[in-house]
Amino acid sequence: MMPSRLEELISALRCLPGVGPKSAQRMAYHLLQRDRAGAVILAHALESATANIRHCSKCNNFSEEEVCSLCLSPKRDSSLLCVVEMPADLLMMEQAQCYRGLYFVLMGRLSPLDGIGAKELHLERLLRRVLEHPCEVILATNFTVEGDATAHYLATLLQSQQVKVSRIARGLPMGGELEQVDSGTLAQAVLERREVSA
Amino acid sequence: MMPSRLEELISALRCLPGVGPKSAQRMAYHLLQRDRAGAVILAHALESATANIRHCSKCNNFSEEEVCSLCLSPKRDSSLLCVVEMPADLLMMEQAQCYRGLYFVLMGRLSPLDGIGAKELHLERLLRRVLEHPCEVILATNFTVEGDATAHYLATLLQSQQVKVSRIARGLPMGGELEQVDSGTLAQAVLERREVSA
Repeated sequence: MMPSRLEELISALRCLPGVGPKSAQRMAYHLLQRDRAGAVILAHALESATANIRHCSKCNNFSEEEVCSLCLSPKRDSSLLCVVEMPADLLMMEQAQCYRGLYFVLMGRLSPLDGIGAKELHLERLLRRVLEHPCEVILATNFTVEGDATAHYLATLLQSQQVKVSRIARGLPMGGELEQVDSGTLAQAVLERREVSA
Repeated sequence: MMPSRLEELISALRCLPGVGPKSAQRMAYHLLQRDRAGAVILAHALESATANIRHCSKCNNFSEEEVCSLCLSPKRDSSLLCVVEMPADLLMMEQAQCYRGLYFVLMGRLSPLDGIGAKELHLERLLRRVLEHPCEVILATNFTVEGDATAHYLATLLQSQQVKVSRIARGLPMGGELEQVDSGTLAQAVLERREVSA
């Protein structure tokens, strides 16, 4: 009833995260019915990306070269190393234009239930790098339960090696109103209050 | 900051229905990070499907041949033609094992706001086929506003050519309880009541 190549396409689409059998079928129909050109472009993009994109040997971010352009840039301050979870977080940091140091991208967060431990995050590579080139490590993992746990684990690991470690501040966002912020954030903002210089 | 091939992959993934910039990024990261084998299989499935799958010249369903195996089967009753919206609907009909006739797959439904009219649904092909091989047409489009409108349009078109047209019944589902069914369905079930044979 269904051509075998269509069945294969539907089954292959399920490798995408969050795509179940119904969505995969809808996607396959859409591509074959209304966007065959898009499907061909997607096929080429998948092949080109899988064949050419690897991880930068220094910062672990996605890169087409052995060492990515950011790590090679002489304009970056090598005395600072910012640890983020994902490449998207690195992009946000760069867009904020608040940081001129280097990065280490974990490509995830500690999540024992999903089988993601210290080994999967290449923490031994991070540790080796920090010991070879001493620097201040700024932990910029997310303020979620898993992101916090990852930061805590990293802080313990690095401080045991006498590395200076800091964590980006938690507090009210720009334009934030006390009335609308959640109590956890407010409590943390009070706890981490800073003296006002005269 | 982001390799160009990664940007291209994220942009190409947006040809999938329901995939916005954030999901496309998540999908690209997932494939490169955790499932490169799946990405390669998907690339091949996309290429193979777009190159080999076309529409059956008789029933308009997806097919790898000029005429699909269902249309060629001598076991099917050619005096019945069931019109469905999508290939998935045809599969449901086949699974119900209640029908041994042939099909015509609209690959959509009338939806003027989305620019889908009689021409996009190849209704002239359906009409030609019915006039060449007279048969009873069973309308099995969905009982949605657009599916009903499509059925109404088709019924008017076909009856003007003296074709016998029927619509699958609306009523309470198997195991349905009056207390739980919506009033529209109940009203229709009363309206379409059938005499009980003694």
